[in-house]
Amino acid sequence: LQNRTIVRFIARTMPRAPSSVAPGSPEPPAGRPVPKGRQTKAAIVDAALNLASQMGLEGLSIGALAELTQMSKSGVFAHFGSREELQISVIRAYHQRFEEEVFFPALQAARGLPRLRALFANWMQRVAVEIQSGCIFISGAAEFDDRPGPVRDALVGSVKSWLAALDKAVTQAKQEGDLRADADARQMAFEIHGLILALHYEERFLHNPGSLHRAEAGFEHVLERYGNPDAVASTVPSDVRPRARVSTPSRPSRSKE
Amino acid sequence: LQNRTIVRFIARTMPRAPSSVAPGSPEPPAGRPVPKGRQTKAAIVDAALNLASQMGLEGLSIGALAELTQMSKSGVFAHFGSREELQISVIRAYHQRFEEEVFFPALQAARGLPRLRALFANWMQRVAVEIQSGCIFISGAAEFDDRPGPVRDALVGSVKSWLAALDKAVTQAKQEGDLRADADARQMAFEIHGLILALHYEERFLHNPGSLHRAEAGFEHVLERYGNPDAVASTVPSDVRPRARVSTPSRPSRSKE
Repeated sequence: LQNRTIVRFIARTMPRAPSSVAPGSPEPPAGRPVPKGRQTKAAIVDAALNLASQMGLEGLSIGALAELTQMSKSGVFAHFGSREELQISVIRAYHQRFEEEVFFPALQAARGLPRLRALFANWMQRVAVEIQSGCIFISGAAEFDDRPGPVRDALVGSVKSWLAALDKAVTQAKQEGDLRADADARQMAFEIHGLILALHYEERFLHNPGSLHRAEAGFEHVLERYGNPDAVASTVPSDVRPRARVSTPSRPSRSKE
Repeated sequence: LQNRTIVRFIARTMPRAPSSVAPGSPEPPAGRPVPKGRQTKAAIVDAALNLASQMGLEGLSIGALAELTQMSKSGVFAHFGSREELQISVIRAYHQRFEEEVFFPALQAARGLPRLRALFANWMQRVAVEIQSGCIFISGAAEFDDRPGPVRDALVGSVKSWLAALDKAVTQAKQEGDLRADADARQMAFEIHGLILALHYEERFLHNPGSLHRAEAGFEHVLERYGNPDAVASTVPSDVRPRARVSTPSRPSRSKE
């Protein structure tokens, strides 16, 4: 029942196939139309991505996609050899969208701390959307964590390539002198990843207000630990106000409750 | 197919109902035997908890439980009015096990930083087990994050009561003077929660080696930020070696790649 409600909700808010190209698809070169079959496939993948964000990759069904795209089940199935291939296409589409929204725009920022800040800010923006819609990097991890196979491999590969990009940005920030020479890139990326996961969990699942601000404050704390203070201070966004440090209080005697 | 493989695996490794009491069940008072019906129900819940850890709460089925406990389907069903009630019983059982393994033993440690450290150490131990078995607090969040109803409510209530206990331990550590007076309990608990989530994600899903050590190091970093240095240093476990701080390097000119 709930599955069908979501399918209808998504159907009301998305463009129809095959007359429209999916929003994430590349623009066709001028004067050279994209073949109709490829347009249709892109539209199905886009619908599948919307559905998977809400229902999980395991929630994907040919029937629901046929309803969403107003195609026949056999018409949908003809574009994918198997449900597994459909799931992998969705992971690739998500990966591409993630790169376009989070990774590529951050390359415009100067190498070092500005770029690392941009990566985190773009990631936060992506998660803020996914607090409503769900995230297949997170729900997919829970679905496939102990299920070996090509879907799991595609998902792990996608997440790992993103975390490797984050590691690289940290390493570059070290090379630029923005971070301390002993900063451990993998450790720092791990702590940042934790903030994103806590944000998604506490805001989307627990509905704890203030999680967005907590993730931002947590990121500043990570930078305070690993950063060159001048670089951190000179790149702090205007909407993040680090709290003033106060002196450590004297310790009262320890009691046991 | 995979579902049945897991059911058989769990069946081989667990005690049989109704002759045995589930490991998490309270000891019967001496001389007053526990009614057989209650024993059976406890054994079913225990089998269901094992199954749900691996398959998710949505992976629970009366059929699989009947196979696991070697009972009839109607026999299993008689103990629960609905599948939803079975799921809620599993959440309650998990909550009880979590309290017994993580929360109650930490109350033996002195109030303040020693207790906060004990809570984290016990939590880490629980997660280390769940890297193999799965965790219904995490997989359940992905399953029920946008599905209102009594199962979601039970799961959210359970997680929130645990996070509230963590907040309280932080607040007590502040009162004891172990943490800085301006330490924000909710912020600190959020950052700790992130480390646990990153550990589960990176170790269980990505199979990244070293995640356990990274979560431990991250916890020390959180304490470095919020703690009274004397209290942090005097309570550091012998197996955690904080890295020496080195001087900040001079910054080379910024290049753009």
